[in-house]
Amino acid sequence: MEVELLTIGTELLLGFTIDTNASDIARALASIGARVVRQTTVGDDEAAIGDALREALARTGFVIATGGLGPTRDDVTKQAAARLFNAPLELDERYLEVLRQRFESLGRGPMPAANRSQAEVPRGAVVLKNRWGTAPGLWLEGPPGTVVLLPGVPREMRGLIEHEVVPRLGERMRQLGSPDVVTRSRTLRTTGISESALADRIGDLEDQLAPARLAYLPGFEGVDLRLTVWGLAAAAAEEALDRGAELLRPALGHHLYGEGDADLAAIVLDLLRQRRLSLAVAESCTGGLLSGRLTAVPGSSDVFVGGIVAYSNTIKTAQLGVPADVIASRGAVSEETVRAMARGVMAQLGARAGVAITGIAGPSGGTPEKPVGTVWIAAAVESQERAVQRRFPGDREDVRRRSAQAGLDLLRGLLTTA
Amino acid sequence: MEVELLTIGTELLLGFTIDTNASDIARALASIGARVVRQTTVGDDEAAIGDALREALARTGFVIATGGLGPTRDDVTKQAAARLFNAPLELDERYLEVLRQRFESLGRGPMPAANRSQAEVPRGAVVLKNRWGTAPGLWLEGPPGTVVLLPGVPREMRGLIEHEVVPRLGERMRQLGSPDVVTRSRTLRTTGISESALADRIGDLEDQLAPARLAYLPGFEGVDLRLTVWGLAAAAAEEALDRGAELLRPALGHHLYGEGDADLAAIVLDLLRQRRLSLAVAESCTGGLLSGRLTAVPGSSDVFVGGIVAYSNTIKTAQLGVPADVIASRGAVSEETVRAMARGVMAQLGARAGVAITGIAGPSGGTPEKPVGTVWIAAAVESQERAVQRRFPGDREDVRRRSAQAGLDLLRGLLTTA
Repeated sequence: MEVELLTIGTELLLGFTIDTNASDIARALASIGARVVRQTTVGDDEAAIGDALREALARTGFVIATGGLGPTRDDVTKQAAARLFNAPLELDERYLEVLRQRFESLGRGPMPAANRSQAEVPRGAVVLKNRWGTAPGLWLEGPPGTVVLLPGVPREMRGLIEHEVVPRLGERMRQLGSPDVVTRSRTLRTTGISESALADRIGDLEDQLAPARLAYLPGFEGVDLRLTVWGLAAAAAEEALDRGAELLRPALGHHLYGEGDADLAAIVLDLLRQRRLSLAVAESCTGGLLSGRLTAVPGSSDVFVGGIVAYSNTIKTAQLGVPADVIASRGAVSEETVRAMARGVMAQLGARAGVAITGIAGPSGGTPEKPVGTVWIAAAVESQERAVQRRFPGDREDVRRRSAQAGLDLLRGLLTTA
Repeated sequence: MEVELLTIGTELLLGFTIDTNASDIARALASIGARVVRQTTVGDDEAAIGDALREALARTGFVIATGGLGPTRDDVTKQAAARLFNAPLELDERYLEVLRQRFESLGRGPMPAANRSQAEVPRGAVVLKNRWGTAPGLWLEGPPGTVVLLPGVPREMRGLIEHEVVPRLGERMRQLGSPDVVTRSRTLRTTGISESALADRIGDLEDQLAPARLAYLPGFEGVDLRLTVWGLAAAAAEEALDRGAELLRPALGHHLYGEGDADLAAIVLDLLRQRRLSLAVAESCTGGLLSGRLTAVPGSSDVFVGGIVAYSNTIKTAQLGVPADVIASRGAVSEETVRAMARGVMAQLGARAGVAITGIAGPSGGTPEKPVGTVWIAAAVESQERAVQRRFPGDREDVRRRSAQAGLDLLRGLLTTA
């Protein structure tokens, strides 16, 4: 079943509010196999709302709209729908009573007059009770098609979608004899390889992934590969995703670090925990981001003992024991320095594993030999040690976030292959 | 001038990705008085993209589209636009050379074959150089209207909007003699006070702010207050915002820490720089986030010398000199411990100012007396010192991010009022 979404609000078009309702609705509908084929945003303008509803109904016959149901004068969604369905607004006495009781129970005194308009509904509409706020949801059916109107407040919208819309729509799909199908997806997370290099490796496999479709999602932590299937029964969908993931995994090699919403920091902490190793980190250019990633994981304190942010060279020497002449001769961004930092923080904080990062995050500080984005990373586990140089694109934040991820990945490599 | 936006991506329709590009573009266009009247999202489907472009051009004649310009097979935006404008894709040798050099300078070896397609552009399109990634922006004009194609990666999209699209569109509007009105806004940034407490302070002023409208925008760093005016000449808009900000400032008191996109970390670094003070920080529950905030500021290295993430109590004692009996008797989350941490990191790293944070970020570790969210913070500048206890709502990430901001704010207070 195909559905269109319409989100309504001048604030959305001005860019002051980011629309999260559309993605919440899309995910809820995917769970029952209904598919959003287009999403539109218009302002609080009766004519624009009417046009958008009419066009969307002509394409799919089923529209879910959010926003513009509040008690103030700029809320005109109901008026636009009433005109389109030729169904005049009438006072729903039962819902008015629900509203009155709601105000009473919150101890907020008598209901403001403005809220009375929220109990007016287009003739023939089904009222969907909103337990989270004052604007009811409305389900309208008629010659133009089906329109579901929901309030724009995310919490109220989510409650109505989950408890009122999804059950009714599921029932409707069964009555229409829609096959019992779902939309499912699976994510393979890679790091240390670019989107285009991945495409060179796995592009030839894409045809074999059908019916699953592949999307590349690049970010600071690497490139996520998302497989999605639509319109299959749950078992067939899972089987297609299993097969797709099995096809991709060997081609991804060591760049694949996890699946789903796996976090590389949590993975590294688990690997250390299995071997009963403690971890300390020394950071220069990342300035605390790597520690931040590790300590974001609940329960990290049984593995991660601490970190030293050695931003000045004096501290690299005094706290981490990097010889001043190494910094002078090789530079603060060098293999010798980063190896000494890793060893130094392990000794200083008494840990058996360590990661160190030093680099040039920019915007200044670059040289022809060591341009902005040049980063040295070292990882050590007991007597074993690795160091790599990377050159990251992007601005200061990019370089720092990519460096922290690369530091975690270097340690992962040492723990899984050594 | 009226503009439509088209954001392209099956991921957006599936609800896996929240669309932030539409609001970024809307705000950038508002600055030159161009108005977004409708925004549409379709999937990576050539026919659906073509339909949406054609419909939007019929309404406004000017469309900005994002997404679907990557090097992989699911990227088909260029193909749809090429068909609509009857302008076949041709290899742009100059852009191919730009791409080759980009890969070379990043030291990533030869350019993957997949990227070659990114240098193919519809005949007659103006290539907008993307300094932040590999997909060029494209500006197409012809009988159907004007279409600007931008990559979907937010950073690349923002760079192209700011440096290429807004200047060209502004010039176009001047040529067309559009009335010279703007949408402008101003933000006052507050911290350490809740949205409802702010409303109690300034609610009575709202009517006097007209024609500016006020929005409350709560976040981890505090509550931003945004004043906005629409449809005024630039001078009148600035005057209304000046007047509004003057009205609000006295009511905000010391909670107001900056305006616009002011960052509290940068403000604190500037205050320290003026007094030639160096800074070191000691973190327990924030685990590097405070160091991360400080080092995110370019040029922070002349003030910030470093930090110690003392996640285990052993390290609090060994590195920061917190007496073990203080931790045993008062607890790791206590006034005595946090004051000793601040003094300890200043001594250990040789800094004249310090901030320390220790708390219970959750989800576990809370007790009846010290529930999750309890945080002790200390700031010291030479011989002066302050410590406060805070109790933050929310989950682990909330507590950590709010704590880092509160640590910066405590130091700001000490530097501005001591």
